[in-house]
Amino acid sequence: MTASFSPDKAPRPGANQLPARLAARERPIIIGVAGDSGSGKSTYTQGIEWLLGSERVSQISLDGYHAEDRATRRVSGRTPLDPEANHLDRAVSHIKRLRAGEAVEVPVYDHASGTFRAPRLHTPTPVVVIEGLHTLYPAFRPLLDFSVYVDTAATVKRDWKQRRDTRERGYAESDVAAEIERRAHQYDRWIAGQQDVADVILRIHPSELSELAVGQLSAEMPETCYHLELIVTPRDDDQQSLFLPVDLSNMTRQTAMPFMLATVPSQFRGQSVNVLHVDGYMAPTALETLEYAISAFVGLDAPAGDPVNGATQPFTVRFAQMLVAWPVLNRIVALSG
Amino acid sequence: MTASFSPDKAPRPGANQLPARLAARERPIIIGVAGDSGSGKSTYTQGIEWLLGSERVSQISLDGYHAEDRATRRVSGRTPLDPEANHLDRAVSHIKRLRAGEAVEVPVYDHASGTFRAPRLHTPTPVVVIEGLHTLYPAFRPLLDFSVYVDTAATVKRDWKQRRDTRERGYAESDVAAEIERRAHQYDRWIAGQQDVADVILRIHPSELSELAVGQLSAEMPETCYHLELIVTPRDDDQQSLFLPVDLSNMTRQTAMPFMLATVPSQFRGQSVNVLHVDGYMAPTALETLEYAISAFVGLDAPAGDPVNGATQPFTVRFAQMLVAWPVLNRIVALSG
Repeated sequence: MTASFSPDKAPRPGANQLPARLAARERPIIIGVAGDSGSGKSTYTQGIEWLLGSERVSQISLDGYHAEDRATRRVSGRTPLDPEANHLDRAVSHIKRLRAGEAVEVPVYDHASGTFRAPRLHTPTPVVVIEGLHTLYPAFRPLLDFSVYVDTAATVKRDWKQRRDTRERGYAESDVAAEIERRAHQYDRWIAGQQDVADVILRIHPSELSELAVGQLSAEMPETCYHLELIVTPRDDDQQSLFLPVDLSNMTRQTAMPFMLATVPSQFRGQSVNVLHVDGYMAPTALETLEYAISAFVGLDAPAGDPVNGATQPFTVRFAQMLVAWPVLNRIVALSG
Repeated sequence: MTASFSPDKAPRPGANQLPARLAARERPIIIGVAGDSGSGKSTYTQGIEWLLGSERVSQISLDGYHAEDRATRRVSGRTPLDPEANHLDRAVSHIKRLRAGEAVEVPVYDHASGTFRAPRLHTPTPVVVIEGLHTLYPAFRPLLDFSVYVDTAATVKRDWKQRRDTRERGYAESDVAAEIERRAHQYDRWIAGQQDVADVILRIHPSELSELAVGQLSAEMPETCYHLELIVTPRDDDQQSLFLPVDLSNMTRQTAMPFMLATVPSQFRGQSVNVLHVDGYMAPTALETLEYAISAFVGLDAPAGDPVNGATQPFTVRFAQMLVAWPVLNRIVALSG
C-alpha cells in the first residue's frame, strides 16, 4: 500500500465509454428535479451539463406550463405552486414524447416580464433534465429515470428570491416579501411532500461553522457559504467511490478556509440513511480533483461543458453541483450499461 | 490534471531518509508532552513510537519524579499536581544528560501500588518523548525540541480516570470521585497554563455528532468515539501536506459510520489559528492510508512499531495518534535535515 489510492472497485460496465453509449441509446434518460421556486434547482443541477456537455444534456423548465401569466394571477389570486394552476397533463404528454425521442414544442415562461414567450423546439439530448415545482408528482414519476429534490431553508430562499425577483424579475421589494409569506404554507401543502419520493435530496441551510469555533469564528463567512446536506436513497445498484483528497496539514494552517465534512446516520422516511453534511469552503484543487475524477469515470478528459456556466460559479456552488451530479451520473452509467 | 494527486510540495530535506539521519544524530530529539493525569498523554503520543519503532523512540514519564508516594500524600494532603510535590530539578538534570546522549537512572512510580519501584536505566533513543504533569514548565522548555499539550474535557477525564484508577490502580470508586473534585482547581492552577506554550494542542471532548443529525442520530456512539480538536501553532518551517482520502459516496451509504472533519478559523493566544476538528469513526482504509503515507514520508515501508501498541487500538484513538504524530514527525524531519 502506498500514499496514493484508487477507487476500491473496478469501474462498472458502461463507465469510461459513457459518451459513446449515450449516443447509441434509443431513448433519452429523463432526470426530474423538484423544489420550491427560488430553491436553486437549476443552479444545483447544472453540474450534470457542465460535466457532460450541452450536446449530451439539456434542461426543460416546467414553469412554461404555468396556466396563468403574472397579470392573470393577480386577478385569480392563485400562485403557480398550486398544481391546478399548471398544465401538468400537457407537460406529462410532452415528456412522454421526449422520452420516445421526439422533438417537442416546449412552452416558455419569461420570469422577467411575467408573460409567456413563443414556444421553442426542444430536440431531446441523451439526457434531459426536467426541473419544476411539481416534477415528482405521481403523473411524472413513471417517466423519470432518476429524481432530485432541492430543499433550501426558508431563510436562504428568502434572501435569494428577494435578490433575484427584485433584480432580475422586476418585482418591488415589498411585493416579494408579501409573496414569500403567502407562499410558505402553499409550499408545505403542495411542494415539500415530493422529497419523500426523490432519489437524491440536497438541503441548503445557512452556514453553521460558527457553532464549531473555539471561542469566536474569526473569518467572515460570505453569502455564498452554506451548510449542504445530501441524502442518497439506498438503491440496489451501489454507487462508485468518489475520493475527495483532504489535506489534514492544510486544515491546521493559518491560511486554511473554514470547511466541514460529515456523515451522520439518521432516520429518513422510516429507513436508515447517512446524511452527508458539507459546510464552508472547498479547496479549489480538491474541487478540481472531483470534477476531473467524475469526468474520467464517464470517459472524458475534462468537464465537457461551457466554462461560462461551470467554472465561474463560487466554489461552494460548484461543490454542491458535484454532490448532485455524482449520484445522477452513477445512475446514468447504470442505465447505459 | 488527473483523478489522482500528490502532495503539492517536494519532500523536504531529510524526509525519506529519516531512520539513517536519526541514527547519525549526535543528540536525541526531545519531545515534551504535558497534560493532566488521566488525559491520555501516553496513549495519544504512542503513534510516534508506533510509526518509527521502539529502537528509535522511547518514553519517560515524569511521574517517577513525584516527591511523595501515595501513603505520604495521604499524610501531607498534597497531590502530584503541585509542582513542589515533584523533584522537577532532578528531572531537568536527567533530561539534560539524556539530551547529551548519556544513559540515566530514571526513577519509576508504580501507579498500581502507589509506591516507587527500582529506577531503570534509560539509554537514549534518537527520539525521547517526555510525558508528565509539568513537562512544559519553564525549566524544561529550553530542553524540548517540540511540545504537545493534551487537553481532555473534564467529563471524559472523569470517565477514564474512574475506570483506570479503580481497575488498574486499585483505588476505591468513592475515593476516586473525591480526588477528581479536589484536583479540578489544582489542574487550573498548576497544569492548564502550559497549553499556552505548546506547539501542538490536542483537545478531546465527548462526541458532538448527534447535534448534526437530521431528526435523531440513529447510531449508538460507543465510548471510544470522541470529538478531537487539533491546534498546530504556526511555525516558520511549514508542514508537509498529508492527504486523507475521503470517499464521498461511502459517506452517503447506509453502511457508513458517523464521521466529521472540519477546519474552523479561531483565535488562540491572541493569534489566528485554524482548529482541525474530527469526530466519529475513521474508515479503516483511510486510517491505513494515513499511517502508510507518514511511514513513506519518513522513509519506511510501513509503521515500524509493535502492533500490540498500535494496530489494536480503536480506530478513533489511532487517528488521534496520527494527528499528533504528523506535526511531531515534521519537526523531527526538519531537525534531522
